[in-house]
Amino acid sequence: MPELLTQPITLKISGGRVNRNSPQAYCLLSRPNREKIAAMENDRLAAFSDGVIAVIITIMVLDLKIPHGASFSALAVAAPTFVSYILSFVYVAIYWNNHHHFFQLVPRVTGTILWANLHLLFWLSLIPFATAWLGEHHTAPVPTALYGVALLMAALAWYILQTTIIHTQGQASALSKAVGRDIKGKISPILYTAGILLAFVDTIIADALYAVVAIFWLIPDRRVERAVSRQ
Amino acid sequence: MPELLTQPITLKISGGRVNRNSPQAYCLLSRPNREKIAAMENDRLAAFSDGVIAVIITIMVLDLKIPHGASFSALAVAAPTFVSYILSFVYVAIYWNNHHHFFQLVPRVTGTILWANLHLLFWLSLIPFATAWLGEHHTAPVPTALYGVALLMAALAWYILQTTIIHTQGQASALSKAVGRDIKGKISPILYTAGILLAFVDTIIADALYAVVAIFWLIPDRRVERAVSRQ
Amino acid sequence: MPELLTQPITLKISGGRVNRNSPQAYCLLSRPNREKIAAMENDRLAAFSDGVIAVIITIMVLDLKIPHGASFSALAVAAPTFVSYILSFVYVAIYWNNHHHFFQLVPRVTGTILWANLHLLFWLSLIPFATAWLGEHHTAPVPTALYGVALLMAALAWYILQTTIIHTQGQASALSKAVGRDIKGKISPILYTAGILLAFVDTIIADALYAVVAIFWLIPDRRVERAVSRQ
Amino acid sequence: MPELLTQPITLKISGGRVNRNSPQAYCLLSRPNREKIAAMENDRLAAFSDGVIAVIITIMVLDLKIPHGASFSALAVAAPTFVSYILSFVYVAIYWNNHHHFFQLVPRVTGTILWANLHLLFWLSLIPFATAWLGEHHTAPVPTALYGVALLMAALAWYILQTTIIHTQGQASALSKAVGRDIKGKISPILYTAGILLAFVDTIIADALYAVVAIFWLIPDRRVERAVSRQ
Repeated sequence: MPELLTQPITLKISGGRVNRNSPQAYCLLSRPNREKIAAMENDRLAAFSDGVIAVIITIMVLDLKIPHGASFSALAVAAPTFVSYILSFVYVAIYWNNHHHFFQLVPRVTGTILWANLHLLFWLSLIPFATAWLGEHHTAPVPTALYGVALLMAALAWYILQTTIIHTQGQASALSKAVGRDIKGKISPILYTAGILLAFVDTIIADALYAVVAIFWLIPDRRVERAVSRQ
Repeated sequence: MPELLTQPITLKISGGRVNRNSPQAYCLLSRPNREKIAAMENDRLAAFSDGVIAVIITIMVLDLKIPHGASFSALAVAAPTFVSYILSFVYVAIYWNNHHHFFQLVPRVTGTILWANLHLLFWLSLIPFATAWLGEHHTAPVPTALYGVALLMAALAWYILQTTIIHTQGQASALSKAVGRDIKGKISPILYTAGILLAFVDTIIADALYAVVAIFWLIPDRRVERAVSRQ
Repeated sequence: MPELLTQPITLKISGGRVNRNSPQAYCLLSRPNREKIAAMENDRLAAFSDGVIAVIITIMVLDLKIPHGASFSALAVAAPTFVSYILSFVYVAIYWNNHHHFFQLVPRVTGTILWANLHLLFWLSLIPFATAWLGEHHTAPVPTALYGVALLMAALAWYILQTTIIHTQGQASALSKAVGRDIKGKISPILYTAGILLAFVDTIIADALYAVVAIFWLIPDRRVERAVSRQ
Repeated sequence: MPELLTQPITLKISGGRVNRNSPQAYCLLSRPNREKIAAMENDRLAAFSDGVIAVIITIMVLDLKIPHGASFSALAVAAPTFVSYILSFVYVAIYWNNHHHFFQLVPRVTGTILWANLHLLFWLSLIPFATAWLGEHHTAPVPTALYGVALLMAALAWYILQTTIIHTQGQASALSKAVGRDIKGKISPILYTAGILLAFVDTIIADALYAVVAIFWLIPDRRVERAVSRQ
């Protein structure tokens, strides 16, 4: 239905032929469209990643085997699996969180970024597997080491993704500045590797190391957030 | 509330460099962009939460064990599991519903809100586990109590999320007003706790309490909705 | 960075104080915002429904038991399960498809619509369960009847959702016109009911009826689509 | 291509009723709205496809059976399953990737496109099933052939989807040009068919062929991407 404009609105753009890419047209139309297209691209990568990460973080609960029997003792048996579930939930949550902040500074994605992102999702998708195996054999070295390998590979995949994105944006980009020297990102793989090796000495040390890195990432990292609000 | 423009908007951009942050540019461009960026942030938190809650609410059906045999009696065996499935479905649906309404009043999310939200999702993700165990031992005290614990923790996580958001917005915010004294939110944990304890007296009482709280939340809560439409 | 506007743009709105809800402000700002808010609401209901339906349609494949052995004959054993999988996939796809078209005409969702939608999702979420049971006992009356019950309940839930939405929009709405007398929607439940009853006579008849209704819905239904493009 | 405005945009709305479909209103309002509606349609198809593909790519990990025992040898047993998991992950990722690029050039979706897309999702949804069976019997001809059948059907479904979309857009469309002679799309089915047949000669040859096609698609295909940025 028609609506009322009780006051005159005068919008005058002088000049005849107006190219859609000219400043005027740009100002009225093209800019939002451009952003929309870029945003759509980014949105869909984000949406797909959200979907995959949402499934990863949730299907892990399917590996929490229902206790045999209905007693406290039966529940207690599930405790170690539960602990590994918490750790993995936190890790996947950290990745989603960083992904969320990171891609706010990535207006446009390239094919290379898509693949670097899929590569990250691949390694994240193995965390439920590693978690379930660790949950069943929480004192055994090999499952403990494998869990560390999954974390290590995901960390490397993240590093590749980050580097790829910064590469496409240039060293001067807000993102590049936000990431800075990225000490966290550089130390984590070292600690994972230590965990993997020490799993064969004492699994407790390895588990401790994995937990430490998680806590270490939980400490709010304002770098990217700050860069976003700065924009 | 209406926004006043005390000056007539006379926007004359006659050539020259115009900074994207100038009032003129702002009027034509920046405002929607700002909102867009904020919305995108919010959207992605919403999208991820939707994804996780969608998986949680759906994978519960995987715990509905297929009856052994093809008779009515075989189907009847699945009945208690089915009842607990309905209850859990309703609970997760309530959380999604509140989440949906709530985040309409949260234009911009902070890192703290992201984590408070992930904390809520963690406890919600345990509902399928608690449901499956309760379904298998629906007359046993421990599974009935554990189910209540899952509900209690989710309720507390919701309370934390709500408080965090209101804190970032200030007591004067539409959301703070909308939530008001939040009697429901304060009574529910008490009833869950009662259910957990009474599960060891009689599981029926506990189940009844869990059901009561659900119905209690199903009664449409127009507070937030009203605040949204008021905007 | 600043950008260039080489041509003057004159946007003059006479008058002093401008209420954000005044036509002028409305024209420049409020309209897109209003739509944005409405769209966001709708989008999120759509996003969540998409998520749930996506999980429903996909987890059904988890009930396709992997054949014991690697021979053709081993694969042949899975055939009936596969057929029921196809039928269910088509049904869930039909629901998503109608949902997709339908909600294009629902700019704003109310709490009642949210719940009517969740009620539909509940019954859809039982289709994988019914499918798996039917797949295991495809010649048994009870599983065949139960499958029909799942379809019937989903159909009724859809009818409730449709009625709720039209109720909020009024009989004059594009949607109400698009749905019209809704013969399909009225006949389907009758055929499902017939299938449920005839399952105890001959499961083939029931299966045939379920398949007929599916085909019946697959025939493109342009009503809503036409209404959308008409807008 | 640039859009020409042959008249200077002098938009004077001096009071009175202005129909929302008048050129003036169009200039200020309708264009973005129209695009928004189209985008919403497309977005939702994309969102649903993302959801389904996200679940497909992730639930495959549930078929990675947890090794019996905690030794390296126990883990080694899972190796072939793991290899087939990688291959399938890559395939599903390729489909998502192409889907992502492709639908950037599909502003508006029709009912036919929706169904062609659902048909693709159906065959993709069988990949986890085929993968799990292949993983358990990686040297057996029938599972190896079936895996190829799943890939072949998905490829044909993609071809149908692509043809449907181009048909609705016309041969002159950017998409049609972008796809061009589509050699990849034409050769892949031939190689899959060869793999299916050769599976009964030697499964290694079949596996090799499946892997070759995947690599073949991994080589960045800039056709569509270029067309997008050209816009």
